[in-house]
Amino acid sequence: MSKQVKLYFDLLSQPSRALFMVFNLARIPVIHQPVALRKRAQLTPEFKAINRFQKVPCIVDHDGFKLSESIAILRYLDQKGDFPYLRDLYPNDLRKRAKIDEFLEWQHNGVRLHCGTYFELVWRMPLVTGKPSPAAEVKKSREEMIKILDFMENVWLGDGNRFLTGEKLTVADIWGACEVEQPRMAGFEPREGRPLLEKWLAEVQKATNPVYDEAHEYLRRAEKKFKSQN
Amino acid sequence: MSKQVKLYFDLLSQPSRALFMVFNLARIPVIHQPVALRKRAQLTPEFKAINRFQKVPCIVDHDGFKLSESIAILRYLDQKGDFPYLRDLYPNDLRKRAKIDEFLEWQHNGVRLHCGTYFELVWRMPLVTGKPSPAAEVKKSREEMIKILDFMENVWLGDGNRFLTGEKLTVADIWGACEVEQPRMAGFEPREGRPLLEKWLAEVQKATNPVYDEAHEYLRRAEKKFKSQN
Repeated sequence: MSKQVKLYFDLLSQPSRALFMVFNLARIPVIHQPVALRKRAQLTPEFKAINRFQKVPCIVDHDGFKLSESIAILRYLDQKGDFPYLRDLYPNDLRKRAKIDEFLEWQHNGVRLHCGTYFELVWRMPLVTGKPSPAAEVKKSREEMIKILDFMENVWLGDGNRFLTGEKLTVADIWGACEVEQPRMAGFEPREGRPLLEKWLAEVQKATNPVYDEAHEYLRRAEKKFKSQN
Repeated sequence: MSKQVKLYFDLLSQPSRALFMVFNLARIPVIHQPVALRKRAQLTPEFKAINRFQKVPCIVDHDGFKLSESIAILRYLDQKGDFPYLRDLYPNDLRKRAKIDEFLEWQHNGVRLHCGTYFELVWRMPLVTGKPSPAAEVKKSREEMIKILDFMENVWLGDGNRFLTGEKLTVADIWGACEVEQPRMAGFEPREGRPLLEKWLAEVQKATNPVYDEAHEYLRRAEKKFKSQN
């Protein structure tokens, strides 16, 4: 176990959860380094020395190599080539990989941007500022999130595959599911009225458990708390 | 030339320009298929059959394989492995590639989101709707764009390298430059007050010309027109 990778993460962050799951599922030797975003631990000078972008997730490899951006980290781990279980989740076949990459690139300004913005406006910002975000901004963000979730339902999942890019679970599903889960903390239920998305999320959970539940444990508690207060 | 790739693009789109440049620089056999976004050509049923996401850029390979998302397309072309000049722009070395990927993943919700949103609000939407975007939205977008351009200047370019990830031009520079150029069409000069960014853009242009100027010819004309009208 001398070749462990240090993973800096917070399970409040969608791509942190995705990488946390991948390290577990692909059996990559890891040292967990939680970074408490709610305590603004990412903004300390100590953390800036680890990641100049002051964000999670990021890694420091056993040889000291530092990297941020979850999908860049995924590709780096894959290219290192020591992890056969990772290859199952991110197959090397030219066309299969291209379709997975297509989703991973799409999600940034697709499901990530819109579910993440809604979460920011309705959950995180009010915690920071002590007051609710402007109603017009929340309304616009909600509409855009609904549009993108409908696009997930009708286009990405509309061809009836079990998973996003075919019949097998891949990293695309892991990244996608972690994003779609995010607005649940802010009291929004992405599965409502979206039977394909509901079925897909359950399949992702089943295919990855127990690590799916472990990664989303904090989120479930936050979801309950938000519901009881709103 | 039987193995040409059809590239669907509009030089008004940042990632279209990046891929247009890469096909040229890496000498990849290509059939140019311009798609006029201003005429909403991407929304026709004919184009939907080519790309279900109804966006540019996208490709159809010589064997009929369809793919969208510029960075997924870049990786697909790279993995095909027939293009040695592409390897110069996107080296296979584990750490070098990881740092390039770090930028390519960062830019989506970094320089792409904020420069692209400003362009949408100030240039494209007024053309579509016939009236200016709400001043408060423009102001907020401008502030966010300025923050992200300052981050390019101080963090990405702050270590004094000639290019974004070192002393050699890579695809990171090509994607980055195409995004930073975008708000110029909307009358915003990203180089003003950012000497490192100004120097870097000039280096990217020099290292890639004549294709840089070819890719940005329409943008330059739009920039002049916008200035003369505002």
